[in-house]
Amino acid sequence: MSLVVVGSVAYDGVETPHGKVDRMLGGACTYIALSASYFTHTKIVAVVGEDFDPADRGLLSSRNIDLAGLETARGKTFFWAGKYSDDMNDRETLRTDLNVFADFNPKLPEDYRNQPYLLLGNIQPELQRSVRAQMNGVRLVGGDTMNFWIRDHRAELLKTIREWDFLLINDSEARMLSGHQNLKRAARAIIEMGPHTVVIKRGEYGAMLFRPADFFIMPGYLLEEVFDPTGAGDCFAGGFIGYLAQRGIDLRDNMIDRRELSRAVIYGSVMGSFCCEKFGVDRFRTLTRPEIDARYQEFKNFTDF
Amino acid sequence: MSLVVVGSVAYDGVETPHGKVDRMLGGACTYIALSASYFTHTKIVAVVGEDFDPADRGLLSSRNIDLAGLETARGKTFFWAGKYSDDMNDRETLRTDLNVFADFNPKLPEDYRNQPYLLLGNIQPELQRSVRAQMNGVRLVGGDTMNFWIRDHRAELLKTIREWDFLLINDSEARMLSGHQNLKRAARAIIEMGPHTVVIKRGEYGAMLFRPADFFIMPGYLLEEVFDPTGAGDCFAGGFIGYLAQRGIDLRDNMIDRRELSRAVIYGSVMGSFCCEKFGVDRFRTLTRPEIDARYQEFKNFTDF
Repeated sequence: MSLVVVGSVAYDGVETPHGKVDRMLGGACTYIALSASYFTHTKIVAVVGEDFDPADRGLLSSRNIDLAGLETARGKTFFWAGKYSDDMNDRETLRTDLNVFADFNPKLPEDYRNQPYLLLGNIQPELQRSVRAQMNGVRLVGGDTMNFWIRDHRAELLKTIREWDFLLINDSEARMLSGHQNLKRAARAIIEMGPHTVVIKRGEYGAMLFRPADFFIMPGYLLEEVFDPTGAGDCFAGGFIGYLAQRGIDLRDNMIDRRELSRAVIYGSVMGSFCCEKFGVDRFRTLTRPEIDARYQEFKNFTDF
Repeated sequence: MSLVVVGSVAYDGVETPHGKVDRMLGGACTYIALSASYFTHTKIVAVVGEDFDPADRGLLSSRNIDLAGLETARGKTFFWAGKYSDDMNDRETLRTDLNVFADFNPKLPEDYRNQPYLLLGNIQPELQRSVRAQMNGVRLVGGDTMNFWIRDHRAELLKTIREWDFLLINDSEARMLSGHQNLKRAARAIIEMGPHTVVIKRGEYGAMLFRPADFFIMPGYLLEEVFDPTGAGDCFAGGFIGYLAQRGIDLRDNMIDRRELSRAVIYGSVMGSFCCEKFGVDRFRTLTRPEIDARYQEFKNFTDF
């Protein structure tokens, strides 16, 4: 039961109230795959430049992530730099150098094509569709998107998500995509666009999962110190799809135990919370599955009534 | 097991994106008492002017609220008018006429003084202290406050809450009172100020309850339409203390079943959510206890995992 993940593998420069790192491993695909790797075998599709550090490749390999689909192209790796506001609820992009990512044309290795789970990280909707088209008989496909695609590439995006089982999206983007301020209505409108399952991420406030006849709401994990929120949403996605893949769950099955979906959301929140505890991907250098399960149990305890 | 509630009984003018009402029954004491009345017998201490409408008195009586402590003074009833922003997360005060409230000097009727539960609505900390001092052997005392008292009457406020078992406060006010941005740290700092139980209200995002060795977090109820959020925080307070009074719970007991506290928070959220469904107190004209318990059960369902 492998999971295929497509998205960016990048270098990030990040400044938060807790410090500044000029260059560190980042990118949606990186965070999703590291997070999902605690739950299921994960194969990535991405592109890096000749400057990609073998130590960073080593970190991914150490989590048993399949790098057969990680292409190395002539040029430099995608670079992004940003600075967070004092309360870390906003961030300003200081620099975006697409580099080798500008000509990324994902090609799936043969043994990726028959895998049952596919997570399309936040990239151009056309590329997400091209990856989807290369998969045979995928059981569960979903992905993430962002305000840029919603605003400036709406038709492409709608064409893309029509084929998805689930969409992961944050609250402001759900409002933008649907035109509804109320999140229940926003979710209903998005379900009309194709995905039968919509997960709305609310940052520190938790997440909600909507299906045509059901919904689930969970608060966020209360961290005492958020060092760097970069990648938290992608780690949420990795925990969510990772848990579903680990359990072999088919979201298209209407008889599914709805608590399994809730648990996938909780594992998503758990992974997002760990991500924020250190800069970049640093928390994943030491994180263990027992720590993850202990935090899942904490969720049980602080929400029990 | 009666509950004594002190606070304002007022007339409000409210404008939201859904409409405008020039003058309707309002005030913290009104909302708290209406909400608590579904759980326990409630006695109010407040002042109104000669213009107070018998029909409004009738609404309170219809909920079996004891009005022996509702004084009528010469002059007009406290009037407040405000206008909500489009997303209803902010509001602007358009007018505040204290009227008879300016000289309010609460005096408790004899049979109020031996009641076990006391909720001090948001009024001057000195008045809250004076009411507290008139009670004999109260089992559980707590209250609400607001930014104005925190900023401009801090010493008085600290002297007042030192004697409380619990403080109900919203997230921005918890940050202002404690000086901590992080809500876990904020709660810990407030516990140091006196109350062993701190409930932080987060509006649509739910609420958190902190005790020295425990905490509980719950998402908010997802309404499809918020007509008027006025009074929602007070209705939360009424549901919270009302449930504790109904169950005869003593928060000072360290052996207390912590899920009882969680349930009190849920009932608080349930009552806050009903309040928003209509303008002012209108929802309480028809609301029934079975509707309340059904919504409590909905919370169980949408948070189960």
